[in-house]
Amino acid sequence: MSKQYVDVDTLKYVLYDIHKLEHILDRERYQDHDLESLNLFIDSIKDFSDRELYPYFKEMDETPAYHKDGTVYVHEQVKKVMQKSGELGLISAIFDYEDGGLQIPFSVLQAAVYIMDAANNHLPGYPSLTQGAAELIVEFGSNLLKEKYVPKMLSGTWGGTMCLTEPQAGSSLSDVVTKATPTDNGYYKISGQKIFISGGDYHNADNIIHLVLARIDNAPKGTKGISLFLVPKHRIKDDNSLEFNDVTTVADFQKMGQRGYCTTHLSFGDNEDCRGWLVGEEHKGLAQMFLMMNGARIAVGRGAAAIAMAAYRTSLQYANERPQGRKLSADGKKNPTEKQSLIIEHPDVRRMLMLQKAIAEGSLSLILLASKYHDILHTATSKEEKDKYHLLLEMIIPIVKTYPSEAGVLAVNNGLQTLGGYGFCTDFTLQQYYRDIRIFSIYEGTTGIQSQDLLGRKVPMENGKALELLAAEIMKTIVEASSDNDLKNYADELSNKLQQSQQILSKLMPFALKGNYERYLADANLFMEYLSIVVVSWLWLEIALDASIQLKNNTKKYSTIFYESKIETMKYYYKYELPKIDALAKSLMSDEEVTIKKDKEYII
Amino acid sequence: MSKQYVDVDTLKYVLYDIHKLEHILDRERYQDHDLESLNLFIDSIKDFSDRELYPYFKEMDETPAYHKDGTVYVHEQVKKVMQKSGELGLISAIFDYEDGGLQIPFSVLQAAVYIMDAANNHLPGYPSLTQGAAELIVEFGSNLLKEKYVPKMLSGTWGGTMCLTEPQAGSSLSDVVTKATPTDNGYYKISGQKIFISGGDYHNADNIIHLVLARIDNAPKGTKGISLFLVPKHRIKDDNSLEFNDVTTVADFQKMGQRGYCTTHLSFGDNEDCRGWLVGEEHKGLAQMFLMMNGARIAVGRGAAAIAMAAYRTSLQYANERPQGRKLSADGKKNPTEKQSLIIEHPDVRRMLMLQKAIAEGSLSLILLASKYHDILHTATSKEEKDKYHLLLEMIIPIVKTYPSEAGVLAVNNGLQTLGGYGFCTDFTLQQYYRDIRIFSIYEGTTGIQSQDLLGRKVPMENGKALELLAAEIMKTIVEASSDNDLKNYADELSNKLQQSQQILSKLMPFALKGNYERYLADANLFMEYLSIVVVSWLWLEIALDASIQLKNNTKKYSTIFYESKIETMKYYYKYELPKIDALAKSLMSDEEVTIKKDKEYII
Repeated sequence: MSKQYVDVDTLKYVLYDIHKLEHILDRERYQDHDLESLNLFIDSIKDFSDRELYPYFKEMDETPAYHKDGTVYVHEQVKKVMQKSGELGLISAIFDYEDGGLQIPFSVLQAAVYIMDAANNHLPGYPSLTQGAAELIVEFGSNLLKEKYVPKMLSGTWGGTMCLTEPQAGSSLSDVVTKATPTDNGYYKISGQKIFISGGDYHNADNIIHLVLARIDNAPKGTKGISLFLVPKHRIKDDNSLEFNDVTTVADFQKMGQRGYCTTHLSFGDNEDCRGWLVGEEHKGLAQMFLMMNGARIAVGRGAAAIAMAAYRTSLQYANERPQGRKLSADGKKNPTEKQSLIIEHPDVRRMLMLQKAIAEGSLSLILLASKYHDILHTATSKEEKDKYHLLLEMIIPIVKTYPSEAGVLAVNNGLQTLGGYGFCTDFTLQQYYRDIRIFSIYEGTTGIQSQDLLGRKVPMENGKALELLAAEIMKTIVEASSDNDLKNYADELSNKLQQSQQILSKLMPFALKGNYERYLADANLFMEYLSIVVVSWLWLEIALDASIQLKNNTKKYSTIFYESKIETMKYYYKYELPKIDALAKSLMSDEEVTIKKDKEYII
Repeated sequence: MSKQYVDVDTLKYVLYDIHKLEHILDRERYQDHDLESLNLFIDSIKDFSDRELYPYFKEMDETPAYHKDGTVYVHEQVKKVMQKSGELGLISAIFDYEDGGLQIPFSVLQAAVYIMDAANNHLPGYPSLTQGAAELIVEFGSNLLKEKYVPKMLSGTWGGTMCLTEPQAGSSLSDVVTKATPTDNGYYKISGQKIFISGGDYHNADNIIHLVLARIDNAPKGTKGISLFLVPKHRIKDDNSLEFNDVTTVADFQKMGQRGYCTTHLSFGDNEDCRGWLVGEEHKGLAQMFLMMNGARIAVGRGAAAIAMAAYRTSLQYANERPQGRKLSADGKKNPTEKQSLIIEHPDVRRMLMLQKAIAEGSLSLILLASKYHDILHTATSKEEKDKYHLLLEMIIPIVKTYPSEAGVLAVNNGLQTLGGYGFCTDFTLQQYYRDIRIFSIYEGTTGIQSQDLLGRKVPMENGKALELLAAEIMKTIVEASSDNDLKNYADELSNKLQQSQQILSKLMPFALKGNYERYLADANLFMEYLSIVVVSWLWLEIALDASIQLKNNTKKYSTIFYESKIETMKYYYKYELPKIDALAKSLMSDEEVTIKKDKEYII
């Protein structure tokens, strides 16, 4: 199989040249690292992905995780990748030295795991969730909990999970009912059910550490009564041996995609012997969990962006190899004695390929932008800087989670179509990418929830300051690009669209001010799509601007065609994607209230 | 399992009240039928689908067709449904009495099979393709061939297929190389390979009759050298016993969806003992095959429309039963002590449901419109009528095939999202609809090919007369709706969009006139989407107009809410779907030529 599942040049170009990793490396925290060493780290992950991830991509789909007699069986490669992720420092990469970490920038880790996601999206979730669970313990847990659990998680010996969702509550966390009853022994007795727990159990893990949202007896109702607990599958006895902690696996959800990545239904305390240890403060569990949520949401966007990339590379290779059909000659006919064209020569196939390239690479830039904001925020040296990047990050997080997931489905859909009938056949991986990517708009808050977050919380944040800051960043690029004759028209167009978003908000805001939040948020999904396309248009302009400068100044690191292809892709995005927001604007400005429930039910 | 996979009231409403089946029944050919008898026929198919199709929908996905030792094994229900389809008159429905048919209108058959498609889209292809193959024999075959093969096909005893695609040719039929060598015995020796043959072989069929495109020795190159052959799996000996005809099954393609509907790779004449009989004239095979293609393309659109309907009904039922989350109160907060809302009460869920309803029911009306044109054309009593409906049918065929397939994917995608995480799980059928529907934009000419057909052949047909006729039909509804105060604005909007399509063509046509067909057709897919949305907007206006009239005149056959819900859905379509064509217009009018291959390859 080809290992062309990812375009490493573009990845490095976006990380180094567009988002300027070197500026991050100037910071105190990263003084032991330089571009060269981090570049080697990324290369080592590509090599690791070539050897240990990509070869199992199809196989893991064909032999899905399954539940039998209380145990979930997964592909043997899960254990290998967990171990290797420990050894390579993937799990510990972003932690402080004192916590056993490597103090590698978050951006670099995202770039590395992006390669893994593109190689085989069924595997990186296991180490990534373990990292997330360990972060919660390090951030909020007692020293004792840190010492007992974190080292084995960072080494990939033990897995980690986040347990939020319950059967009766779904996305509505205020309805969580898992119980935590205090005891006199420093722990709580946990009882309840959690569903959709990724990496929740697998036969070859020595132990799994669950970070569980639960409600202490008599806690307040709603999200303000939720606490966070560390609940190991096997608890550690005084002699350091392990003892079963009454965490039972009820089932493994069988899914349309990501079939090698187990999704479990767990039951805590069936025999009233499940112990949990409070992490952080009572009733602050949700807030604590959500401090990690930005990272988790970037990770979801990253996974979708990587799948879109892999699908693009796969369909591009096919289009470059498959002969079929002929060009129309000037009389509008085809000459059957002529040699067949490669399908990449047909404009419609080219449209499908450029669509994929524009979405996949645009999404990549979006992920690394958010990662850069995350890095700056976490190493900020002034309150001003911290406030600014906090707002910028909060503003784009819902977009970062949603755009690659939603546009990624469109991209992979076009990748599948590029292969015609073969795209639908299991001999080819396009159909697997198509199935796998579909979960990303559901993970960690659906597109609906992200859109409510964007329009309902982020836009009004600090009286609109977050959106102002984002607009200012966009304007910087517009101003620079306006002085480039080849880019001026594109810059003008983006500037117009950016202004139009203010008109939309002027139309919608009065509903919020009058307390009619239902109306204000009814079309939040459309606003999400609108703003996402504006942001990705900005990122493409930024790339085209850099490419134009490198070409004009002859300061190229890559081939001429590399830069020219970026400018062409920007033009694609501005011709075919940017205009979509005119339609969205029209729908958003419409006075027709057709999705709000009226006195009668019209949806029958 | 619920049998609410189809909305029979809406089906009948669109067939009887919108497309006025009674006007078709006035025709000589249908004098033995009346609305009552045909209504009973449709009801009997619903009953049949409830009992014999829907219960096996999930099971057929979970136990896909497979190939072993030269035989394809399918679900036992395939044989049952073939037999019953024969008994119920489904296969013979539209044939002449003298050919063993029932002379049932094509529209009524489409309505009936639509129910079957919605119940279980893995099954109706077997009898439908058998019908198509039999049509070719009846239309073009000798009396001997008709007598020997057709009765057993119409009774469902023998299956039938269409064999077009070859491995090296794909959609490019001019590259077909399957050979037909004349003999002195009235038959030809056939040798070659065909792929993607739906229903091509199954273990419990007594015989399968293949209609094969092949090239007689020394035939002209290209599509003008292709002839049509009847090639049975088992040929009929003089004593009427069957003898193997050297048609071997090489493989069954394993697919992402429609896994119960086998897709075979066939080899003809491996042992130089495969006999084929010419059907119709030498070298006219493609033209003959394409006479049946309109019916086949309506059938593809019908299948996609039906899956979109089934997915809508399933997600609607879920949304009406699943409690989750709460409304925001006037302070923008949620009260956790309040009872949870049903998810159908959330505007964003309502948007996803109405999107599905608008696409699914709009597609249904489109299918039945094409079927009506087909019926009128085939019973035309004057040359004028025949010419008119020939052009109207040709004009909308690519749209009928494409819109339900492409918009159907969008609809089912929203159905899956309505269920959140459960939508991705195999316990629920949404993920199956999502996988199944994806093949429809590839079947019988991909969306790319349909779009080239629409803009390249149908629009210029008879100097634009086909498009003129369609526009005139649309204008009729616009004029009528303009006199209804509640609909006037919608009618005006549609009128504007219809006019805009002329501007787009004025922009594009000069390219064709200058012989630059590549540029003319480069964005044919976008024009397809544009015109499709115009057409479906028209069909929704037509429905809303009828609903408005029935409500005002109090001539309702259905409940008030039934009609009101149609008007609401039209409003949904005009708020959320119709504006999309503004974006398409902008892309179509753009001078940027970004998908046409230039001197260098920018897609890297």
